[in-house]
Amino acid sequence: VKKGLKFPEVTAGRIMATDIVSVSASWTIGKTLKYLRQKKEILPENIYEVYILDSKRRPIGTLNLNTIVRSTSATVVKNIMNTQFKTIPIDTDQEEIALGFKQSNLIAAPVVDKLGKIVGQITSEDVIDIIEEETEEDLLRLSGVQSDDTYSAVLKTIQSRFGWLLINLFTAIAASFVIGIFESSLRQLVALAILMPIVASMGGNAGTQTLTVAVRALALREVTRANALRVIGKEFAVGTINGIIFAVIIGSVAAYWFQMPLLGIIIGAAMIINLMVACLSGILIPLILDKTGIDPAIASTVVLTTITDIFGFFVFLGLGSIYLL
Amino acid sequence: VKKGLKFPEVTAGRIMATDIVSVSASWTIGKTLKYLRQKKEILPENIYEVYILDSKRRPIGTLNLNTIVRSTSATVVKNIMNTQFKTIPIDTDQEEIALGFKQSNLIAAPVVDKLGKIVGQITSEDVIDIIEEETEEDLLRLSGVQSDDTYSAVLKTIQSRFGWLLINLFTAIAASFVIGIFESSLRQLVALAILMPIVASMGGNAGTQTLTVAVRALALREVTRANALRVIGKEFAVGTINGIIFAVIIGSVAAYWFQMPLLGIIIGAAMIINLMVACLSGILIPLILDKTGIDPAIASTVVLTTITDIFGFFVFLGLGSIYLL
Repeated sequence: VKKGLKFPEVTAGRIMATDIVSVSASWTIGKTLKYLRQKKEILPENIYEVYILDSKRRPIGTLNLNTIVRSTSATVVKNIMNTQFKTIPIDTDQEEIALGFKQSNLIAAPVVDKLGKIVGQITSEDVIDIIEEETEEDLLRLSGVQSDDTYSAVLKTIQSRFGWLLINLFTAIAASFVIGIFESSLRQLVALAILMPIVASMGGNAGTQTLTVAVRALALREVTRANALRVIGKEFAVGTINGIIFAVIIGSVAAYWFQMPLLGIIIGAAMIINLMVACLSGILIPLILDKTGIDPAIASTVVLTTITDIFGFFVFLGLGSIYLL
Repeated sequence: VKKGLKFPEVTAGRIMATDIVSVSASWTIGKTLKYLRQKKEILPENIYEVYILDSKRRPIGTLNLNTIVRSTSATVVKNIMNTQFKTIPIDTDQEEIALGFKQSNLIAAPVVDKLGKIVGQITSEDVIDIIEEETEEDLLRLSGVQSDDTYSAVLKTIQSRFGWLLINLFTAIAASFVIGIFESSLRQLVALAILMPIVASMGGNAGTQTLTVAVRALALREVTRANALRVIGKEFAVGTINGIIFAVIIGSVAAYWFQMPLLGIIIGAAMIINLMVACLSGILIPLILDKTGIDPAIASTVVLTTITDIFGFFVFLGLGSIYLL
């Protein structure tokens, strides 16, 4: 299980290319072009930007190839170089890097060590891979699988999925214990046993919808401390209103099916409560996990379905035991 | 519901930028640089490649800025231009475009109309957006939500999630009808009611794991006609082996809990069968949907959980009714 839940963070230092091109601030564009021509065999194949460094190899400016080809030969580098550039500290997490590139529409950016010295660069090509990997990871983690699963061998796949299923088995058994509390009610009114999976299943699905949106919104920094309360309020409203609509539908079906109007009211009430709990859990679980430093994509689903299952069974069977027997 | 399932395809024509830079094959690099300098006010800000066109404006070569800055002034464009370049037909789907860029490590590519005439270009920056959007879409569709959900108003959110929940309500009611078939068995042996959610839930989770991997593998073209049978075989093996392991665990728990060894054997057998069905469904459903032209990410989950719920309840309650009563 431990292995399945461990995902090391990838930082700028691991992604960056170390072969960068630097020119002097005092050079002209003519001299820069001559340099690029003469050194073409040893320079990296794809250059987007060249960097201008101070005596301690700290970047003081960047020069895009687009600027180079549009400037006259006599232009001096320091007069046209871009000094409003972003640097990436070497220990920056890849998720932060991808966000920075998207927000600032960057093509390339220098990576610097703790002293501000240039140690490499990251380009938009690297960011394509990062973005795909991050979104992919969220998708797979929410379903309890690890990456690269398609090409893994059978035994490795079994191992990678086993931990998640084992956790789910424990939570399913816990839910069954809750059902077991109401053993005598179930024996007296078998309609409760027939209908109970509906309440739990609708809670699980409604909660998963909220959860998926919340996990991605957190990854994209769309949910912040400033708007968290508003988002929570919105999910509560969505859960309540959807709960009322589905309560009317399932209440009517149940009342007609078993010819017991009160049973319809009970399952309707349980549906409203469980959908409210589900939508609130769907937003609160990832928020809390994120705050405690756990990746919400890893653990959210299992916590959510445990809550919606146990709560769904407990509320429905509890209300049924009180009012129907 | 209909609205929630409609996702129009985005093609190259909608993504491309129409302002491209073209130079003549007979020009020298010196003349090309002079042209770029003189026209810098009207040319697009970021150029990755310039295009060389024939008299009918069909691209016959591309020239990367990296090549330009490394070539001497006297070099003639046609001698160094890249003639092994890819063109993108204007009606190409964005998913195909992203795949092409990743496979060929492209920075930019010309978009052509039906006559082969250049109409625009797509750059790696555009592809970043596409990749993120596509992976994101798969993630949200698998959970039954539409994109841009975080910023939607409450009523719009309720509407966008309602269709999915309604479908799930119907399938949950269908599963309850299956349980209803075994009403008298449940009355005679309440342990069946207490344990039945475990079999269904484990099937749903194991199937979802397979499904998520399969949907992404299809999107990334990792599953093809050539290896489909091998992938199906692998999932069958994973389902069977995981099924056997979990059968032993839950069989022991159930036998001890209710002091009925035969009940343990029955739930174990149901677990193996349902996990086999779940893993096979997890790979076959997206494969079949993909073949019939339906996006597997939209409809897979609901079909899968319907199968694992109904099958799980039916096998467990069926075996229980035959051998325990």
